[in-house]
Amino acid sequence: MTFAATVLTLYPEMFPGPLGVSLAGRALERGDWTLEAIQIRDFATDKHRTVDDTPAGGGAGMVLKADVLAAAIDHARAANPSSPVLAMTPRGAPITQARIRRLAAGPGAILLCGRFEGFDERIFAARNVEEVSLADIVLSGGEPAALAILDACIRLIPGVMGAPSSGVEESFESGLLEYPQYTRPVEWEGRTIPEVLRSGDHAKIAAWRKQQAEDDTRLRRPDLWERRCGVRDQPASDARREN
Amino acid sequence: MTFAATVLTLYPEMFPGPLGVSLAGRALERGDWTLEAIQIRDFATDKHRTVDDTPAGGGAGMVLKADVLAAAIDHARAANPSSPVLAMTPRGAPITQARIRRLAAGPGAILLCGRFEGFDERIFAARNVEEVSLADIVLSGGEPAALAILDACIRLIPGVMGAPSSGVEESFESGLLEYPQYTRPVEWEGRTIPEVLRSGDHAKIAAWRKQQAEDDTRLRRPDLWERRCGVRDQPASDARREN
Repeated sequence: MTFAATVLTLYPEMFPGPLGVSLAGRALERGDWTLEAIQIRDFATDKHRTVDDTPAGGGAGMVLKADVLAAAIDHARAANPSSPVLAMTPRGAPITQARIRRLAAGPGAILLCGRFEGFDERIFAARNVEEVSLADIVLSGGEPAALAILDACIRLIPGVMGAPSSGVEESFESGLLEYPQYTRPVEWEGRTIPEVLRSGDHAKIAAWRKQQAEDDTRLRRPDLWERRCGVRDQPASDARREN
Repeated sequence: MTFAATVLTLYPEMFPGPLGVSLAGRALERGDWTLEAIQIRDFATDKHRTVDDTPAGGGAGMVLKADVLAAAIDHARAANPSSPVLAMTPRGAPITQARIRRLAAGPGAILLCGRFEGFDERIFAARNVEEVSLADIVLSGGEPAALAILDACIRLIPGVMGAPSSGVEESFESGLLEYPQYTRPVEWEGRTIPEVLRSGDHAKIAAWRKQQAEDDTRLRRPDLWERRCGVRDQPASDARREN
């Protein structure tokens, strides 16, 4: 099955960009996935090809018009009726590896990229658009987010990754960070590879890695650790949040 | 002041990629920032130009060698002695807008991009490398993360953004999501712009926007909301986390 990526953007020339190289690029050439970058401006209706207007209520910047966005989305959906539409916006739900897995297992995705001050809010409900945030940082537009999300999807498409075992024991797949990795030389600048990894005892190595992954997750990412332990789902936690 | 971006990568041809277009591209042409993409493989020492080796203790994939990475980092640092070195890794600290602001205000950044199963862990302490994660998703390599982080930095460099007021009232800058935006037409597919935004009453508009930003943050991002309210810093919360 081919994964169909459709990007709605004011800068179609940014695609495939880095996705035309390496793993994703070879998969694109093989036809494991397809990419269509559609110019939002083509759906403007006036002779100036206007896509944006000033914010209602005042303020800096420009807002992408709902009518133009709707026409672009309708066009993309006609060709990909069962693909979800995801808008790249810092107001969205943080992207997760679980969401990436579900996307990659589906027919494809339509990614809506904004610029300026963002989208007219009415578009999301009117066209059933999922609002997704890549990270808690402000980008100049949605395009770098779309590239990262597509990259994460593409590597999961069957046949794209070289070793089929890659992707299972990775960060986030188990709700944990990945354990630390080492390779030769055994000693480098006075720093040695942990002895257990050189023991050849597979059970001990597996136990050490599990412990490391748990310790690092608890220390570095208490948010992930709490979610994994289900603390947030307990009534006490919900009550606290209401305060 | 020019912001100097240095990327250490096995795929220098991915750069500038999307950063050569639009806002970032024009700023690059003007010299507001510079970009050097350095091939890590150039720092391999054997005739096969080996950059990776099998993981100590076994497992799938390949690990980037500490000695090769160190040589590449040392080379980049010699040219940019006061720039921080950031490795793109899902084991790292989640990137924040506050970190982006500090980076953008500095002389530049050296971004280390991995592929395969990641980096030999020893490199981080040996070369004072900051581990940074873009999002809780697994990418095929660090390059899409480096592109997103650089994009976020570049737009903050003085002179890059058109309107100087953009960038202040944005998501995350105040610890809140941005309020929703609307633009003409006033009525579209039966959906109208909220009346307050058409009132011309600037104080009422500002109050409505603040309330929307707070409501949306509480509803959509309880994690951000709690951090803002300092709930996580209270002893009760810490105690809970220890359990």
